[in-house]
Amino acid sequence: MTEQVNRQILLASRPQGMPTEENFRFVESAIPSPTEGEVLVKTLYLSVDPYMRGRMNDAKSYVPPFALNEVISGGIVGEVVQSRTPDFAEGDIVVGNLGWQEYSIADKNQVRKIDSTIAPVTTALGVLGMPGLTAYFGLLYIGQPKEGETVVISGAAGAVGMIVGQIAKIKGCRVVGIAGSDEKNRYLVDELGFDEAINYKTTDNMKDALKKACPNGVDVYFDNVGGEISDAVMKLLNFNARIPLCGQISLYNLEKQDVGPRVQTQLLIKSAMMQGFIVSNYSAHFKEGATQLAQWVVEGKIKYTENIVEGFENIPKAFLGLFSGENLGKQLVKVAERTR
Amino acid sequence: MTEQVNRQILLASRPQGMPTEENFRFVESAIPSPTEGEVLVKTLYLSVDPYMRGRMNDAKSYVPPFALNEVISGGIVGEVVQSRTPDFAEGDIVVGNLGWQEYSIADKNQVRKIDSTIAPVTTALGVLGMPGLTAYFGLLYIGQPKEGETVVISGAAGAVGMIVGQIAKIKGCRVVGIAGSDEKNRYLVDELGFDEAINYKTTDNMKDALKKACPNGVDVYFDNVGGEISDAVMKLLNFNARIPLCGQISLYNLEKQDVGPRVQTQLLIKSAMMQGFIVSNYSAHFKEGATQLAQWVVEGKIKYTENIVEGFENIPKAFLGLFSGENLGKQLVKVAERTR
Repeated sequence: MTEQVNRQILLASRPQGMPTEENFRFVESAIPSPTEGEVLVKTLYLSVDPYMRGRMNDAKSYVPPFALNEVISGGIVGEVVQSRTPDFAEGDIVVGNLGWQEYSIADKNQVRKIDSTIAPVTTALGVLGMPGLTAYFGLLYIGQPKEGETVVISGAAGAVGMIVGQIAKIKGCRVVGIAGSDEKNRYLVDELGFDEAINYKTTDNMKDALKKACPNGVDVYFDNVGGEISDAVMKLLNFNARIPLCGQISLYNLEKQDVGPRVQTQLLIKSAMMQGFIVSNYSAHFKEGATQLAQWVVEGKIKYTENIVEGFENIPKAFLGLFSGENLGKQLVKVAERTR
Repeated sequence: MTEQVNRQILLASRPQGMPTEENFRFVESAIPSPTEGEVLVKTLYLSVDPYMRGRMNDAKSYVPPFALNEVISGGIVGEVVQSRTPDFAEGDIVVGNLGWQEYSIADKNQVRKIDSTIAPVTTALGVLGMPGLTAYFGLLYIGQPKEGETVVISGAAGAVGMIVGQIAKIKGCRVVGIAGSDEKNRYLVDELGFDEAINYKTTDNMKDALKKACPNGVDVYFDNVGGEISDAVMKLLNFNARIPLCGQISLYNLEKQDVGPRVQTQLLIKSAMMQGFIVSNYSAHFKEGATQLAQWVVEGKIKYTENIVEGFENIPKAFLGLFSGENLGKQLVKVAERTR
């Protein structure tokens, strides 16, 4: 190793509303050494995800908040550069929930080896990782789409949304995406096979646009964004509609209370179901999901898109870009090259 | 028969907001005669239900709207006074969805014979009828309460709410009711075995009152009312909470849009599920539900309460009373005595 320091990013302050680069602080520390049963992992790729915004608040949620002045944790793909366990050898490529830092110590149970013969290692943070599994379980276990039904996806050009739409196509559904640029929408329709895509930023009347795109109403609404986009979709629900609630990115930086038309009457008159979830609820089924996703990727039935920013110093910027709708597909940061 | 006319109540106009007696018109017509396969049913008891308010609007919902200037339809218990089918004999007591009138013609498939040895015939409109089945399926199929969990019920002193609470007690839950008077609440706790009951009309801070009554949070919220009461309950949901949406009586007469804190974030961070339903979704399981309810009633595990107003002329008033919270338990109108 030539690097003598370990660059790290700490949460310097809790964002009020939209986060800024000021909320993060870069520090340097010594590269730590693994003890028995541990490995030292060099970060190659790092994932930035919308859900992380929630952890920056000091509020009770499904995952505990990030601590102030500590390294921010998140998904990484890395290379084992020292091993004190027979389970891993130097040079192994692993994935795990480690930190926004160049080197991490990981217990052998904290990381999982990646089989890089199936797909590029970055997919362990995307289509074959948490976002892919989130799409898989949210759509199939909660949404339960049937052939011929209409599936609407908000945040459709994000890491999860893109996969949801492609799985829904595999299941024989009409798929309508909602995203924030014509470029994204062209990609969804032309490359990923979505039937329609609506640009919420340039559409005057979301309800009318949705009505046109969903002539038979909405059977499944996979919601990544919340807010007014979701209000519009709720008006078009069919009887027995299902709504997997995956994220509410339009609200993560909201400083006031999120107020809007209450959904209960719509759910009541349509016998519709809305279910919040996080992927870890389905951990007992991860193997099934990962196997199926890998098969679809190998068969070319699911395409994946990654938006890779280079350089450790660009991590905060890549994270902030999630909220301005800059990313098409999975947003990653490339931190280092493989050693071997 | 001594009566020579059939008094009927028509929907004279669609209510704007809270209905009034002006929305109804009394008329008289000749008593009709059954043709082959039909019976003539004399109304003994008639059910007034909150859901009927929705049918008075000219709006798409889970049941079609009532037609203007036609007899309002609803659940009745009646006596067969003429029969043109071997399936029914004169004197049989039947239940069915007929009309707000003294005599109805019913096809033999439109009514069902009541076994009056199990319980009084009025129970066919309450605990052993639609409200009982609504409670049964909403709580057990959607709410899925487990022993030791906390079940909160709004509209707890209504026909459905009372039964929900008692079933939840049978299942070993902590049961907290929300109702609109101290008298109702005393009844829920002292007579029906609810653990706690909150008077939403006299409680300054619903959230604090709920917190006190639900020290372990809320696992199942059976919602009959919607609005601000539900907003308060949503804040106390536990992880994996279930919310059967049965009614939204606080909103049925609302003239403006129902706006409030959006529920999606709460559902998301708690992996909670909200499901609207109507009892007919579970028609394939009615026999199971009716058998179980009858058994619980016979065993004394479920008590039922009926509030019976006398006189055909008082039907509109009894209906309007549902919205001012006057009724304790199932609201019925007694229209006539049995002939035999």
